[in-house]
Amino acid sequence: MLHWLRHYRRAMLPGDISAGVVVAMMMIPQGMAYALVAGLPPVAGIYASIVPPVLYALFGTSRTQSVGPMAIVSLMTASSLAPLAAAGTPLYATLAAQLALLSGLVLLACGMLRIGFIANFFSRPVMSGFTIGSSIVIALGQLPALLGASLPALHLPSAILGLGSLVILLAARSLLAPQLRRIGVGSVVADIGAKLVPMAVVLGATVLVPVLGLEGLGVRTTGTVPAGLPVFHLAASFGHWQPLLQPALLIGFMIFLISMSGAQTLALKRAEKLHSNYELIGLGAANVGSALSGGFPVTGSISRSAVNFAAGANTQLASLITAALLALALVAPTGWLALLPLPALAATIIVAVLGMLDTTTLRTAWRYDRVDAAALLATAAGVLALGVEAGVVVGVALSMGALIWRASRPHIAVLGRIPGTEHFRNVERYSAETAAGLLLLRVDAGLFFGNVEAVNERIEDELAARPDTRHLVLVLSAVNAIDTSALFALAELNTMLRTRGIGLHLAEVKGPVLDRLKQSALLDELNGKLFLSTAMAWDALSPNARTH
Amino acid sequence: MLHWLRHYRRAMLPGDISAGVVVAMMMIPQGMAYALVAGLPPVAGIYASIVPPVLYALFGTSRTQSVGPMAIVSLMTASSLAPLAAAGTPLYATLAAQLALLSGLVLLACGMLRIGFIANFFSRPVMSGFTIGSSIVIALGQLPALLGASLPALHLPSAILGLGSLVILLAARSLLAPQLRRIGVGSVVADIGAKLVPMAVVLGATVLVPVLGLEGLGVRTTGTVPAGLPVFHLAASFGHWQPLLQPALLIGFMIFLISMSGAQTLALKRAEKLHSNYELIGLGAANVGSALSGGFPVTGSISRSAVNFAAGANTQLASLITAALLALALVAPTGWLALLPLPALAATIIVAVLGMLDTTTLRTAWRYDRVDAAALLATAAGVLALGVEAGVVVGVALSMGALIWRASRPHIAVLGRIPGTEHFRNVERYSAETAAGLLLLRVDAGLFFGNVEAVNERIEDELAARPDTRHLVLVLSAVNAIDTSALFALAELNTMLRTRGIGLHLAEVKGPVLDRLKQSALLDELNGKLFLSTAMAWDALSPNARTH
Repeated sequence: MLHWLRHYRRAMLPGDISAGVVVAMMMIPQGMAYALVAGLPPVAGIYASIVPPVLYALFGTSRTQSVGPMAIVSLMTASSLAPLAAAGTPLYATLAAQLALLSGLVLLACGMLRIGFIANFFSRPVMSGFTIGSSIVIALGQLPALLGASLPALHLPSAILGLGSLVILLAARSLLAPQLRRIGVGSVVADIGAKLVPMAVVLGATVLVPVLGLEGLGVRTTGTVPAGLPVFHLAASFGHWQPLLQPALLIGFMIFLISMSGAQTLALKRAEKLHSNYELIGLGAANVGSALSGGFPVTGSISRSAVNFAAGANTQLASLITAALLALALVAPTGWLALLPLPALAATIIVAVLGMLDTTTLRTAWRYDRVDAAALLATAAGVLALGVEAGVVVGVALSMGALIWRASRPHIAVLGRIPGTEHFRNVERYSAETAAGLLLLRVDAGLFFGNVEAVNERIEDELAARPDTRHLVLVLSAVNAIDTSALFALAELNTMLRTRGIGLHLAEVKGPVLDRLKQSALLDELNGKLFLSTAMAWDALSPNARTH
Repeated sequence: MLHWLRHYRRAMLPGDISAGVVVAMMMIPQGMAYALVAGLPPVAGIYASIVPPVLYALFGTSRTQSVGPMAIVSLMTASSLAPLAAAGTPLYATLAAQLALLSGLVLLACGMLRIGFIANFFSRPVMSGFTIGSSIVIALGQLPALLGASLPALHLPSAILGLGSLVILLAARSLLAPQLRRIGVGSVVADIGAKLVPMAVVLGATVLVPVLGLEGLGVRTTGTVPAGLPVFHLAASFGHWQPLLQPALLIGFMIFLISMSGAQTLALKRAEKLHSNYELIGLGAANVGSALSGGFPVTGSISRSAVNFAAGANTQLASLITAALLALALVAPTGWLALLPLPALAATIIVAVLGMLDTTTLRTAWRYDRVDAAALLATAAGVLALGVEAGVVVGVALSMGALIWRASRPHIAVLGRIPGTEHFRNVERYSAETAAGLLLLRVDAGLFFGNVEAVNERIEDELAARPDTRHLVLVLSAVNAIDTSALFALAELNTMLRTRGIGLHLAEVKGPVLDRLKQSALLDELNGKLFLSTAMAWDALSPNARTH
């Protein structure tokens, strides 16, 4: 807790200040925009950017993580609350805070129980598919606001403003940083400059509203933003604890996954160490804080954290400075915020989520492992077809499905001896000799419930193909673990082979695996021997060897 | 299909006939009893024992599997239908058949899609916990019928009959087979004799009903059993497809798991080979057949199949004989079946499920692997606390949870050289020498999304403990696979180490792993080299070696 503060050095200050200012300028439009995605008034997004990062700075372990509203979590908030209340009503805002509270409590509980390993239930391809699906859902959801009307009808002044903002943002994204670099701006500064374009576009569009009288033309704006800091209070609807519980579990899980995947990338760059259990507590505290200060579920945002990092953030002081600046913005006159045109905000959201449509993972997986590529595409399709909440469940199911599917086809080799040596190799890859009545099988996978059946089937096939087999030697050099299911399977295999008059032998059992097997009855009951090496098994069991 | 019939030999006939007769005598009370567990009239249990085994014999692959009503599947049927209709009503019977139809279609679809690997989602300890929890739920559910009333009040004549039957059954179970053996009966015959005690007890109790006038005393009986064969028809309520879909998925999954776990044990004893995809189709056809002939969801029963096997069944002809005998029983006068007293049937159910309360798996897991033991107990508790349907989900979650938890703590060793040799061993276990600036790490697990974070953390820890490290060598001799998530993690590790001026090298990469890595950009971008052996890496990278 506050480890970074105890080791603070003065040299860290300039970087923290510049990052704090830059992120604050990025946060104002982004926070308001993501509040809109969550179905809330824009000011809630500012509220959710003040207290949460302060609490995360107290309890979290990443030094550069920027905690606050985030597109996917806002989408999940909206889709969780949609069946319970109408967006824009006081009940909806209450439930959003209550959802943050419950998600925060879920995260705190997971942190106290030290079950940070739950982040490992999502494979990276599945996470990528989830992000792609969510981005598309968010972008499609912003089309009406961008065009100022319900599709297919559109409101021309709104559409011009929205599409104009979109074109400027897209052009800036692809052209500004290279142009700045070409005129001699350092590449870090150029990149940061490009990140501030959304703020500039929103400000420009806001100026246009009174200048061109856009409100009179029917362009919608954010409307009055209440001045002053958020008031601490616990808003909760007591009839809604139960229906919010499942959404809170799913959102809490995604808050943790999204935050960890971003923070890990940054931590790796600076050789920092994250502690997943403290991250759970930091994110839990941040969400409880968001709930108590008029906010909604928040998490670490990879895009904002990357800007924070690039702009020089050395410690969480940068986030504290951002929070202080946002608080100042609320204390200062907020009248101008009321004029922010919604089509321009929608354009910033669309451009932000388009940036999340990364196809690198898909392309890599496609070349490297089609099962992972299929899981990625299926997760994206699941989010699009079934919604973002079901998408989380689909993602876990597909991560596990790909794992078990792969496990269900383990690599197993029949070994033979390279003549004149003590080396044993796959008879299909090498010209190796086998001995009559002796079958050597090497299983290249840990033995567990996911592959015991496949291993059994393969053994049965090999025995059927060699009816004269008298000794089966399982070479366990590649077996890192044997779980209880596999232990039972081995015991049953042993019994079966005994009744068929075939010896079951184990060779090259690894130390930790052997230590564990000694806790079971298998070794005592083994209808055969334990050999240190395959060569020893060969010498003892092959009839040729015996006759020499 | 019918492979067994094409290879039928006359010598198989006596065994098939004796098994067919024995199982039919076991099936009559069991089928009726499990129909009661499912909330259906007893005759439905006989119906569900005629057509399903015939269809399974046509499409399934196990030669000795006895398909029909089974306790856990009946419990799941009852708990799925409870919210939709009242037991005993025509709608309830219709929905039971519809559930069998949907479950059958789910199984057929899984078979056509060839996804038999889904059986691998349950670990053996979790299956044991699920069975224990379900057995307790079933036994408790039979107490009112056993005692003839709602607890705590009981109906004395019923209770005497029920408890009396229970005592006889329990005594027979533990004493009869040993006594028979002692007087010289062969042990197989003695065991089969003991299995027929339920039929004898039910018959004896049925005789007592008219003799003692028990009906007049208020003892409940099965009531009129309609004579005649089941009529083929499709009963379905069109408003109930949707609410039955999720139960059908869960029941279909458990039908497959329960049947496979029993069939595998028997197949192993005879060196038969099961094909999981054909099993899905056989069980699917059996359930569709059950639905069309007035039955309810059915599966292979391990206890009945074991009797079938022990009584000499050589092929599915035994099951066909059983089905024919049950059909005959329905064509013969069925008046006497109406007098079967429910307390005696409840006693047979309780004794049957007590036989499923096997603690061997728990005791083995407790000694061998506490995580598996905890998963077993938690699954049993989940079934008791949340119900049998939620228990399936809990079981899958715990199987996967134990897997990911274990994966999240991979065994990683820092290697050193055994002086004067080319052998490298864990420095914590052996006195081995290390070289300045060179860190050799051996990861004893396949690299995948479940452990990449733990591996990263460990690498970071080891580098932090050795700030002078210039070269990190990952020794991958125990790595059987690297998935896409781990590929990305290695690429990021490579980038990070490059910026810190540390080389990343790979040694002893297995053939299949290397083949796959060549499909990625990792090897081209590697900030270091690929070494065939750890000794070669040592020679190239250790400063000592270089000076020689």
